[in-house]
Amino acid sequence: MILALAGGVGGARLAQGLAAVLPPDRLVIVVNTGDDFEHLGFPICPDIDTVCYTLAGINDASQGWGLAGESWAFMDAIARLGGDGWFNLGDRDLATHSVRRMMLESHSLSQVTAHIAGRLGIAHPIAPMSDDPVRSIVDTDEGELAFQHYFVRRRAEPRFRSIRFEGADRARPSPALLAALDDPGLEAIILCPSNPVLSIAPILALPGIRARLEARTVPIVAVSPFIGGRAIKGPAAKIMDELGIPATPAGLASWYGGLLDGLVIDRADADDVVEGLRLHITDTLMRDGDDRRRLAAETLDFARSLR
Amino acid sequence: MILALAGGVGGARLAQGLAAVLPPDRLVIVVNTGDDFEHLGFPICPDIDTVCYTLAGINDASQGWGLAGESWAFMDAIARLGGDGWFNLGDRDLATHSVRRMMLESHSLSQVTAHIAGRLGIAHPIAPMSDDPVRSIVDTDEGELAFQHYFVRRRAEPRFRSIRFEGADRARPSPALLAALDDPGLEAIILCPSNPVLSIAPILALPGIRARLEARTVPIVAVSPFIGGRAIKGPAAKIMDELGIPATPAGLASWYGGLLDGLVIDRADADDVVEGLRLHITDTLMRDGDDRRRLAAETLDFARSLR
Repeated sequence: MILALAGGVGGARLAQGLAAVLPPDRLVIVVNTGDDFEHLGFPICPDIDTVCYTLAGINDASQGWGLAGESWAFMDAIARLGGDGWFNLGDRDLATHSVRRMMLESHSLSQVTAHIAGRLGIAHPIAPMSDDPVRSIVDTDEGELAFQHYFVRRRAEPRFRSIRFEGADRARPSPALLAALDDPGLEAIILCPSNPVLSIAPILALPGIRARLEARTVPIVAVSPFIGGRAIKGPAAKIMDELGIPATPAGLASWYGGLLDGLVIDRADADDVVEGLRLHITDTLMRDGDDRRRLAAETLDFARSLR
Repeated sequence: MILALAGGVGGARLAQGLAAVLPPDRLVIVVNTGDDFEHLGFPICPDIDTVCYTLAGINDASQGWGLAGESWAFMDAIARLGGDGWFNLGDRDLATHSVRRMMLESHSLSQVTAHIAGRLGIAHPIAPMSDDPVRSIVDTDEGELAFQHYFVRRRAEPRFRSIRFEGADRARPSPALLAALDDPGLEAIILCPSNPVLSIAPILALPGIRARLEARTVPIVAVSPFIGGRAIKGPAAKIMDELGIPATPAGLASWYGGLLDGLVIDRADADDVVEGLRLHITDTLMRDGDDRRRLAAETLDFARSLR
């Protein structure tokens, strides 16, 4: 059994690849919830939705978030009524948030996520990292900003100084995450190519999770979200730069501080020297389903080779 | 100053006519909230929205509810997620319910309604009958049904036995309704051609309202929603029939039990004999804005003639 930790777009793509090469009972996808927030009265879980929409094949691939063929009549009407327009909620996407809001009155986020994923036809389990609220707060040169205010409203433009995960110290890891870590059949843990600071760090910040990952004897392998010093999507390279960490395999290894057994990197970074870490060098850009399946299969083979 | 009591479609049409012939400081439109309910987690106020959309000129005139040019992507997605599909919420309409839900956390329904009406460009005051919840419950041959379950889900098909207005006995009339009744400038009270049983009765059921209407010395005039024994829209005639009351001017007068000073009826009903009530006979069918203005103006002239 494989445990994959994922955030948004890049993580969702590899998760889709993993789901294509592993049966549903051999993969658990645990998703960051540090980006979650409430907007226009709806509980928004951007990373969970990106993973679900991607695995269901209904995501907007060009935009990187939301649903393909989405319409925006709701947002037009919200603007007319004077509501906040800085975070777009598509008409179809809104159904996800509405169902989540209703179900959360009597169900955990894990249960709600399983319901939504099931209705979208996804066979593989997708779970939040925690059913308790964790909220990423970014400290910037403009002061502290709630995550989506930094990321969407301010387009990740303010200089990133640090991040803290409000609530993480008392958030219980989700049942699926705990079960996967306890599963005697666990073969490897994959850190998907999501933003290491924004998407993977919140998961590692949950009480006991980092210690449990370090205590596991199964390989922990990350797939680098960087190619030639740049992120494929989003501000990961900019943030690493502002933290003084190079957006390279070596920078990534130092960021994870000894947690990793192996790292999958792009050919463009083949010359980067990473001490004390096994590398798998390949094409990491995932343009289509074939790329995703291939990268997932290579990552699994590589992880198994490290046992 | 004129106080108009209104429910859905027919009431909204006459209210629009009244707004066309009266300045904003000479008209208060008070709307039934007995039809209100919560659906998919949204607070739905069908009659308030019908009145607001109609006065803003953005209503769907052919359908009789909702917004013109509405789209239904949200409902499609709700169906996919297994949500209730029997009550349609359009993508644009949803913005109204979302803003209402958010604002109700810290504002009264009166304040929320004034905000929404203002954003829609409506100058005339529109207020709910009460800021406290009142819920119409219909007793039928299939048992008691919450109003929208009777009206929309079961399409008003079950046999109507009686109606009760849950919460009406402890609901305070809204500030606008109380202020209008206390206003020394009040000239007349118009009962718009809404369903007398479903739309006007809940307003009259509020504590003290019927007594205060009866105590007023200003004329109370109803505009009949019936033409030739039929309702122009909706199940009003069917319900009157099931209650054993003819859908005629005389039936309407008996339903209101002495409350009215005058009744505006259609030429088709000119031969109906109504004891002890002044009648104004005209064309009551409101096809367009001209019809609405004319009927409103005639109704006002008639009401003033009864002073």
